[in-house]
Amino acid sequence: MADPQTRPTAKFDGDAVRGPVIGIDLGGANIQAAVVDAGGVILGRKKRDTCPEEGADSVIARMAAAARRAAEKASIPWNRVEAVGIGSPGPLDPETGVVAFAPNLGWRNVPLRDLLEVEFGVPVSVDNDVNVGTLGEARLGAGIGKSEIVGIFVGTGIGGGIISGGRLFRGARGMAGEIGHMVVDIGGAKCPCGSRGCLEAMASRNAILREIRRSVRLGRKTVLTRVADGNPARVRSRQLAVAAAQGDEVVLKALRKAARALGAAVGSLTNILNPEIFVIGGGVMDMVGDVMLPWIVSEAKRHAMAATFDGVEIVAGVLGDDAGVLGASFLAREALAAR
Amino acid sequence: MADPQTRPTAKFDGDAVRGPVIGIDLGGANIQAAVVDAGGVILGRKKRDTCPEEGADSVIARMAAAARRAAEKASIPWNRVEAVGIGSPGPLDPETGVVAFAPNLGWRNVPLRDLLEVEFGVPVSVDNDVNVGTLGEARLGAGIGKSEIVGIFVGTGIGGGIISGGRLFRGARGMAGEIGHMVVDIGGAKCPCGSRGCLEAMASRNAILREIRRSVRLGRKTVLTRVADGNPARVRSRQLAVAAAQGDEVVLKALRKAARALGAAVGSLTNILNPEIFVIGGGVMDMVGDVMLPWIVSEAKRHAMAATFDGVEIVAGVLGDDAGVLGASFLAREALAAR
Repeated sequence: MADPQTRPTAKFDGDAVRGPVIGIDLGGANIQAAVVDAGGVILGRKKRDTCPEEGADSVIARMAAAARRAAEKASIPWNRVEAVGIGSPGPLDPETGVVAFAPNLGWRNVPLRDLLEVEFGVPVSVDNDVNVGTLGEARLGAGIGKSEIVGIFVGTGIGGGIISGGRLFRGARGMAGEIGHMVVDIGGAKCPCGSRGCLEAMASRNAILREIRRSVRLGRKTVLTRVADGNPARVRSRQLAVAAAQGDEVVLKALRKAARALGAAVGSLTNILNPEIFVIGGGVMDMVGDVMLPWIVSEAKRHAMAATFDGVEIVAGVLGDDAGVLGASFLAREALAAR
Repeated sequence: MADPQTRPTAKFDGDAVRGPVIGIDLGGANIQAAVVDAGGVILGRKKRDTCPEEGADSVIARMAAAARRAAEKASIPWNRVEAVGIGSPGPLDPETGVVAFAPNLGWRNVPLRDLLEVEFGVPVSVDNDVNVGTLGEARLGAGIGKSEIVGIFVGTGIGGGIISGGRLFRGARGMAGEIGHMVVDIGGAKCPCGSRGCLEAMASRNAILREIRRSVRLGRKTVLTRVADGNPARVRSRQLAVAAAQGDEVVLKALRKAARALGAAVGSLTNILNPEIFVIGGGVMDMVGDVMLPWIVSEAKRHAMAATFDGVEIVAGVLGDDAGVLGASFLAREALAAR
């Protein structure tokens, strides 16, 4: 991952807001908060457990505490913080800041923005975590200088974000970009969303591990049965990378199958959206992107129309875990500038 | 099809241009030209054969002659025509008006806009035929009053257009909207584009006829072998409608399979784009839309995320064959207003 301080920054609306802002990445397992300056440099940060089982009020109090602690660590007095941006699990409505449904937090219709505006006393903006991650990569990462961008984040599940004309493409009700739930194999594997053959059901870490378990049941040998206490279901992305580097056939076959589905999605999205660049990030890509990316590119080329594919870049995300807090800081800054 | 004169019109940029414009729909088989007033009423029209084998210059002369004849029939002197809009086969670049490649015309890199501006002496705008058809349905047809629209046209092939914020979504180089070439069945049937499992390879008229031929080879009986001189490859959409109305099992099964693929695409596009409405038109839908649409809707519901699908309309196009010339007239009017 490149050092944010050495990366160039793009011109955007948010340039008008010069003071520090807070970016918060709200996940099911932990909360990350960072104070970010106008150049996208992280001045201070704090990570806390989310503990969603303690209820929404408690989670919001932890978010507030993490944000204030990050400001303290950066020696930024709270009255200098201009705004707060949040990437949250969704679906949610970015207009109202209400989280409609977040299964890993146990939330339904939580008015996250309004609750945090009361807490912080500064303007708060909320969007879904993958839109925010895509915005981070667009403004300060692999998509810098581009205005037509598709972000795909491959982790436990698969999320996506679309940027067009330099701005997040939100659709009619802020729910656009659910690239993990495009059908690439009609009648294919079951997806947690209830559908079948979704990209997420074929290329997420869960799908990759399912494929590995299937090979193990068929009697194939893999180093993973050793590294993960004999249980491939407990494998982390890092262990997939180690196994792939050792040439483990079972793991490579599963990654290749996932890359094939990702390539079909990238090719389809090339034809549908005609972007300049695909930025593919997330935990799986951070660990095994070097193995998967060339496969994804060659599969995408098979599926995209030649004239549209010509010149399209397909690259790995560069911000890693920071895409969320950095994207959230740009969300906050740009919302404030647009007021 | 509703009478254009009884339909309401939406507010749009083109309202600023009040004079008559010409809309031209350039197809592989024929050219349609119409003089259209600011309310979207067709004042005069002319249809001619395209005769692409006579070369681009000849096709352009025929387009010009059709446009001038349509103006004559409407009693509009040419000096009152404000602009000309064209829907052309693509891919093409709407910025430059150059048709990069049109196999059914035998064209490569034809500077259609510039050639016609010399011919007509008024501003000319060019976009691909399905973008233009989608614009027609958006401004004057089934999408009226909506700003987030996906148009899908099912004929020999499948084309699409996306409208967002009330305007055509063009992507980085004007090539967005190729919905026919999204993969819905990875590893599925071969597509004329060179890929496999594209929507077009599963749900176009050609795909439907292929499925019918397959059933016939397997010994199934269909009324089509009688109506089409014993050759199901020569069946027209109208004959599919007749067979479906008679409860022909072979035809209904083929239509159902196509509807399943269309529904998967509509569900996927709901998740990716979060539109307000899908308008599904084209020759196949004009003839068998009443049979296919309910199947498409129920399949789409299975694949779309519930929160995003809620409230999305999925309707048949209402402009039929006129979507092209009417859309082209709006293209011309809006380009002129934006100058």
